[in-house]
Amino acid sequence: MKYITELEAFLPKDRISTNTTILEQHSQDESYHTPSLPVVVIYPENAEEVSRVMEIANNHKVPVVPFGLGSSLEGHVIPYHGGISIDFSLMDKIIDVMPDDFLVKVQPGVSRSKLNQELKKHGLFFSVDPGADATLGGMAATNASGTTSVKYGIMRDQVRDLEVVLADGTIMHTGNLAAKSSSGYNLNGLFTGSEGTLGCFTELTLRVYGIPEMILAGRATFHTIDSAVDAVVNILSAGIQVARIELVDEDSIKQVNKYSETNYAEMPTLFIEFRGNEAGLMQDIEFTKEILADLNHDTFEFEKDTQAQNKLWEARHTVAYAYKHGFPGKQLMTTDVCLPLSELAGAIKSAKQALKEYNLDGGIVGHVGDGNYHTTLMFDTENPVEVENAEKYNKHIVEYALNRGGSCTGEHGVGIGKMKYQAEEHGKALQAMKAIKLSLDPNNILNPGKIFPNE
Amino acid sequence: MKYITELEAFLPKDRISTNTTILEQHSQDESYHTPSLPVVVIYPENAEEVSRVMEIANNHKVPVVPFGLGSSLEGHVIPYHGGISIDFSLMDKIIDVMPDDFLVKVQPGVSRSKLNQELKKHGLFFSVDPGADATLGGMAATNASGTTSVKYGIMRDQVRDLEVVLADGTIMHTGNLAAKSSSGYNLNGLFTGSEGTLGCFTELTLRVYGIPEMILAGRATFHTIDSAVDAVVNILSAGIQVARIELVDEDSIKQVNKYSETNYAEMPTLFIEFRGNEAGLMQDIEFTKEILADLNHDTFEFEKDTQAQNKLWEARHTVAYAYKHGFPGKQLMTTDVCLPLSELAGAIKSAKQALKEYNLDGGIVGHVGDGNYHTTLMFDTENPVEVENAEKYNKHIVEYALNRGGSCTGEHGVGIGKMKYQAEEHGKALQAMKAIKLSLDPNNILNPGKIFPNE
Repeated sequence: MKYITELEAFLPKDRISTNTTILEQHSQDESYHTPSLPVVVIYPENAEEVSRVMEIANNHKVPVVPFGLGSSLEGHVIPYHGGISIDFSLMDKIIDVMPDDFLVKVQPGVSRSKLNQELKKHGLFFSVDPGADATLGGMAATNASGTTSVKYGIMRDQVRDLEVVLADGTIMHTGNLAAKSSSGYNLNGLFTGSEGTLGCFTELTLRVYGIPEMILAGRATFHTIDSAVDAVVNILSAGIQVARIELVDEDSIKQVNKYSETNYAEMPTLFIEFRGNEAGLMQDIEFTKEILADLNHDTFEFEKDTQAQNKLWEARHTVAYAYKHGFPGKQLMTTDVCLPLSELAGAIKSAKQALKEYNLDGGIVGHVGDGNYHTTLMFDTENPVEVENAEKYNKHIVEYALNRGGSCTGEHGVGIGKMKYQAEEHGKALQAMKAIKLSLDPNNILNPGKIFPNE
Repeated sequence: MKYITELEAFLPKDRISTNTTILEQHSQDESYHTPSLPVVVIYPENAEEVSRVMEIANNHKVPVVPFGLGSSLEGHVIPYHGGISIDFSLMDKIIDVMPDDFLVKVQPGVSRSKLNQELKKHGLFFSVDPGADATLGGMAATNASGTTSVKYGIMRDQVRDLEVVLADGTIMHTGNLAAKSSSGYNLNGLFTGSEGTLGCFTELTLRVYGIPEMILAGRATFHTIDSAVDAVVNILSAGIQVARIELVDEDSIKQVNKYSETNYAEMPTLFIEFRGNEAGLMQDIEFTKEILADLNHDTFEFEKDTQAQNKLWEARHTVAYAYKHGFPGKQLMTTDVCLPLSELAGAIKSAKQALKEYNLDGGIVGHVGDGNYHTTLMFDTENPVEVENAEKYNKHIVEYALNRGGSCTGEHGVGIGKMKYQAEEHGKALQAMKAIKLSLDPNNILNPGKIFPNE
């Protein structure tokens, strides 16, 4: 194909591949979505190379799909229309740490754990922590979030500037280094979460935070999942500034215990973390104890040292992997709705009931401080009944959320998994989104067949 | 004109006007920008009426400029190309307070003080506080911020959903009621700060906060403005969670004392506020005292009661009015750059020197925790030398900021005042913004001649 010849003309041989194993690596993510091969995989080293790739792709109207670590749960990186998969693994440099400005400049292939290792030397950390050790480029593309978003915000809140290569090869910046700006349209926010459909990120300037004076984490167990959710609402309403407040249901605790070799009580549990100065933190904890006592909770225990705290959050983060491990041969589907806090208890109750109704293996975890919860479902993609039930279950969960002012995806993004709910969620706004997409990518080469149905 | 006949056909007589006094009221804002009359002013009562107005305007390619209270400082509401001024003063209802979800739904004509009066009954408050008692529609249109943004974020951070009427009359929603979402493009962020160039807001769902357990505010005075700025950097680097940290220079304190009948020491001053639980707040204050002592500050005094605290923030908010009062016959120009925190001290030093060089009356105040400061300039718009010097001064301030990764406007917006700096600030991204504008408003009827030069 002519475009491959043009790519080969400027890329060294070891940075362009049509090898089957390489193509297969770039054909899938970590979920149940059906793999599909790209035609060619390239490994750029800088923005100028990405720009040249885009120009060639745009001239030939060939699809371009950016690829970080492939940890998506909604098929974002799967090239259903073939074309070029741009693998950013060679663009993995931490360019600049700016401690006085609480900023860091990185290339898109840097993983969040690598960034945090570096930041630790400066007494800083990066706040967003999805389960996977994703790349920062991928996290910005999908507007990822995680356990600490209740305090520090989502990925979009951390993006101060993106260097973006547009479909026509233009290299531009979406922001600047200032903490706020009212100049021009908010391109930072627009490109964050655009899932590779508006441009490829080649550099990110992100907000970082000082490591707080004190961090304390613990587990509160409850006799019912309802009282666990009530506790979240009451804690937040009391103005207690939790840094993390995570629900893990009894079924998920069971998987965690098996996989992480913990022996947590197999009951509905909140993993809670407090951060701040010592005096304020202690007052918050006392207040939290009172709230929990009013709700007739079971236990509320703090992890004594950093190691035990790390173990706790590692256990929380490996829930999805624990399920994968616990159900060999089955595939993972994760629901991801987000609702107004006042609707959360009802939503989770309905989700638990529906698991039984559809006879599915799975459990519920959630970033409940944000109103975001996941059902982790394991099903056999070869069994048509299980597939149908899993799809029906997801649909039930999404429609429950959309009918109550919620969103079909709190943090995993649309990809192909949530495409079918876009019209219902966004109504006429979906036309405005399409108009924007078309204005920046008239040939629809950028991650085609994602977000927008029928493309 | 035919479009006026069409408007008159469905709007009652008392809600459409071509009366000269009314036109003049809608021809100006609170700044030095030259007034210009609209052809007609209309007062809609709901989104459907705004939609019909837009359809008529779009058919006839007539400009539409939304108008809140006219408190803009950059000429946003001035209809330089005539046409229709839509006055939202009749759409001033607080539609729904949702305390459990920390949300409120309002019409665009509600002022921030009216909203806060209502929220107080629920133990809640709305955080964004620009100097003026602006409307929430106007604040969303310009992405306003203010003294509390260092803790609670800017206007864009509060917007959960906007009902927007597009140029073709389409009524759509940009968001939902969930605390976070990764579904589709971030239209909340794009429309917030779009300054009436992408659509008119007819309903806003905004985030609100619980009134904290304790609030304490005080004033710290310094012998030099440099040490005041150093104090800000050191306080933030120490991880102390200030809710407000505002610089007021000695010249501005002088105007405040005259206007607000206060007798604050006429020295560089930080107005600082702490919020939180009592124990945490007291620890933060002790730590702050140590930092200030290290910098050889002059005094650090707390206001004893709520009344004195309110007086302090009222004084801070009236700085611009104090200048207007202190220089009768002169007009107000306010610079509004925002820089990375590490560049702030140098920027303010340069701004002070330049005031002398250009022989201008004015002083400096700033939301220094965000790196955003204003020089309030008073000048005679009839005196060509003063006008030229004021323009040169503003240009100097802006270029200093842009050369150091900053923005030409931290919170006042572009309007017409910052239009000339858009190309320099955004580079190639300005083309992307124009493409987006054109995709949603192909006839350029929405607030034409704002943000984008040469239109």
